[in-house]
Amino acid sequence: MSLIASSAQKVIPPGRIDLAIGQPSPRLLPFAAMAQAAAHAGADPERLLLSYGTEQGDGRFREALAHLLGPLYGRAVDPAELLVTNGASQALDLVCTLFSRTGDRILVEEPTYFLARKIFADHGLTPVALPMDEEGLVVEAVAEALRGAKPAFLYTIPTYHNPTSRCLSTERRRRLAELSRDRGLLVVADEVYHPLAYETPPPPPLASFCREAEILSLGSFSKILAPGLRLGWLQADPRRIRRFTACGLLDSGGGLNPYTSGIVRGALELGLVETHLALLKATYRPRLLALCTALRKALPPEVRFLQPEGGFFVWLEFPDGVDTEALLDPALERGLEFMPGPRFSNRNALRNCMRLSFAYFEIPDLEEGAARLGRLVRETPAGVAFGDRR
Amino acid sequence: MSLIASSAQKVIPPGRIDLAIGQPSPRLLPFAAMAQAAAHAGADPERLLLSYGTEQGDGRFREALAHLLGPLYGRAVDPAELLVTNGASQALDLVCTLFSRTGDRILVEEPTYFLARKIFADHGLTPVALPMDEEGLVVEAVAEALRGAKPAFLYTIPTYHNPTSRCLSTERRRRLAELSRDRGLLVVADEVYHPLAYETPPPPPLASFCREAEILSLGSFSKILAPGLRLGWLQADPRRIRRFTACGLLDSGGGLNPYTSGIVRGALELGLVETHLALLKATYRPRLLALCTALRKALPPEVRFLQPEGGFFVWLEFPDGVDTEALLDPALERGLEFMPGPRFSNRNALRNCMRLSFAYFEIPDLEEGAARLGRLVRETPAGVAFGDRR
Repeated sequence: MSLIASSAQKVIPPGRIDLAIGQPSPRLLPFAAMAQAAAHAGADPERLLLSYGTEQGDGRFREALAHLLGPLYGRAVDPAELLVTNGASQALDLVCTLFSRTGDRILVEEPTYFLARKIFADHGLTPVALPMDEEGLVVEAVAEALRGAKPAFLYTIPTYHNPTSRCLSTERRRRLAELSRDRGLLVVADEVYHPLAYETPPPPPLASFCREAEILSLGSFSKILAPGLRLGWLQADPRRIRRFTACGLLDSGGGLNPYTSGIVRGALELGLVETHLALLKATYRPRLLALCTALRKALPPEVRFLQPEGGFFVWLEFPDGVDTEALLDPALERGLEFMPGPRFSNRNALRNCMRLSFAYFEIPDLEEGAARLGRLVRETPAGVAFGDRR
Repeated sequence: MSLIASSAQKVIPPGRIDLAIGQPSPRLLPFAAMAQAAAHAGADPERLLLSYGTEQGDGRFREALAHLLGPLYGRAVDPAELLVTNGASQALDLVCTLFSRTGDRILVEEPTYFLARKIFADHGLTPVALPMDEEGLVVEAVAEALRGAKPAFLYTIPTYHNPTSRCLSTERRRRLAELSRDRGLLVVADEVYHPLAYETPPPPPLASFCREAEILSLGSFSKILAPGLRLGWLQADPRRIRRFTACGLLDSGGGLNPYTSGIVRGALELGLVETHLALLKATYRPRLLALCTALRKALPPEVRFLQPEGGFFVWLEFPDGVDTEALLDPALERGLEFMPGPRFSNRNALRNCMRLSFAYFEIPDLEEGAARLGRLVRETPAGVAFGDRR
C-alpha cells in the first residue's frame, strides 16, 4: 500500500489512531469496482468521454445518477436538475464565484465544516454564525438574520451535519424552504452525508425543495464511492442550473469531469455503486455503535454526545472549562488524534468540544482510541475540570 | 459515434464546416491509448488513486509530467514547480479566486481568449486591454500600465496565441520576466499551445522564468491528449505553489484530479502521450499548410494573415469596414462557421477580423471551408468593401 500512502492527502504515522481524519479507510476504497468500471468503459471507445463535454455533464450519466438518487432521496430526481461537478468542495467554490462578491456576508451554522470556512475566506466572504440545537439549524435565527442586509447565501449541512451529526427536522426543512422562497434567500445545502443513513431514513433532502425555493444542493461520490474521483453533483431548479452552464469556467472547459463521469456511469450501470454503498453502511454502522459504546465506557458521564444515525462523526461536548485544543498535544503523545471544536467555530469558540470520526478505522482501533481518550481526559491537567467536579 | 456527439460540448450540424470550433477532431481523440492506460492502471489497484490525493497532485505523476515537459520546454522541469489542476480554465478560475478581489483591474491582451474574458467577468474583474503586434504583446505597454494602480495580474498567451497564433519574441519574454520581477507583477501565462510547434521550436516558455519572476504558467492535457480528462498543471516557484496547496478548495477536496492523473501517469509511463503528440503534430501541420494555401487562393489579396507555426488558429484581418459579425449569418447559410473578431476584443473592436481553426476538420473540409469563405466575402453585401476597392 506504499503508493497509496505516498500519494494520499494525509499520512497517518504508524500506531496513531487518528479520529480526526474524515475519510473512508483504504480497505473500503472500491479498487476492484473501479477497475471493472474502467475496463467496461474502456472496452467501448464511445463511452470514454474524451472530448470537451457538455457543460451540464453527460446526459446519460445524469440519468444514471438520478436513478441512484431516487431511492436515496425517497422521491424521483429529474436529471435536468443535476449539474456534474468536481465534488462538493469545487461546487461550493463555484457557487462563491458566481453568487457572491468579495466582502459579502454569508450565513453559516455554528459549528460548521471547517474547510468550507476556508473556501469562504479565499473568496473574501464574511460568515455570520447562526445557532444550532438538537434539531439542527435554528431556522428562526435565519429569519432574524434576514432583517439586516441580505446575505449572499446560507450554507447549511442539513443531514448528518459535519461536525455534529445532527439532522435538521422535517418541519424545519419546510420552514427553511419557505423562507428561501419568500425572502429570495439562496440556500446552499451540503448534503454529502445524506446517503449514509444507518437507522431510519433521514428527512427528505433540501434538494427535494429545489423547484419551489432558491436551493442549491451539493452531493458527492467522495463519501459513497471514492474521494479521488473528484466527482459530485449540484441539484437545483433547471433555471438556476443555467447560471452555471453559462459561466466562463464551464463554457471554456466544457463539463467538469467528462472522463471520470463516463467511467462512473459504467459503475452505476453495473450496479456497483449501490453495492458499494451497502458495504459502506454495513461497515460504518457497527463501527459507530462500537465507538459510542466504548466512549460511554471510557469517558466520564459529564461528557455528552448524541449517538448519530448516519454520516461519519461523533461530536463530544465536554464540560465548560475543558480545552480540547490543549488536549491535542498530550493526545498525540499517546497515539491519538481528534479535531478540536474551535476549528469548526466561526468565533473561535466550542473549546470544550471535539469531533471524532468512525469512518477510517476498524472497530478494535476505535475501541482503543476511545480508551486512550478516556485515559487522557482523566490523567492530563487539561482534563482536570472533571476531577474537580466529580 | 452518436454517444460522443450527444455528450460533446458542441454538436456540429451535418454539412457545416465549423472553423470556429477550437477542438481536436473526434478521430484524433486517443480512445485506444486511454483504454490501454486505464487497463494498465486498473490492473494494479495501487495505481488507481481513489483516496483524497495530496494537494499538489501525486508526486509520481508530477515526475512523469516533468519528464514530458523537459524536451518540450528545452530545459529540465522540477516536479516541485508543478501543481496538478483540472485544466487551464479551472487553474485560471482558481488564480482569480486566490489573487484578485471583485472589482480589481487586470491586464489582458487585445485580442485575448474569449472565454478567459468570461471567467474574469464571473469574478467581477475589470480587464485593461494592452496592444499586440507581430512579436506578440507590446511589453512597453505593460510597463506603462503599471504606472497606475497595480493590477491583480497580467493574463497573457505567449506562444501560438489564441486567437492570433503570434509568438512573443524571446527578447520580449525576458523583458516581461524582468518587469514581473522588478515590479512584482503577477503574470499568468496560458501556455497550453506551446507543445504544438510545427516548425522550429518556439522561444522558451514563460514557465522557464518562474523561479526568478512572479510567473504562473498554465498547461493542459486538453490540447495534447484529450480535453475530456480535465487535467492540466500550473507551473510556478514552489513558494507560490504553496498559496494553492493551502487554499480551501485543495485542503477540502485534496488534489484536484487524483484518479485521472493516476491513469494519465500510466499513459505517460507507457510513452503514449509522446506518441499521441507526434500524431497530432503530424496531422495538424499539413492541415495548417492546406488551409493557408486554400485561403491564399480563395480570398482577395487584401485579406491579411500570418501563417502560424504552431497552435490551432489562423487569424484573418480583412480591410477596415468589413464586418465579420455581419458575415456570420450568411456564412451559416452556406454551411460555414467562424469566430468573429469582436468575441476576442475587450472593447468590442476587431470587427474586421476572424479566427479560423484547422484542428477539427480534415484537409478536404478545410479546403472547402476556405472556398466557401472566399465566395462569401466576394458575394455578400458585408464583403462589398473588397469589391469596391479592387
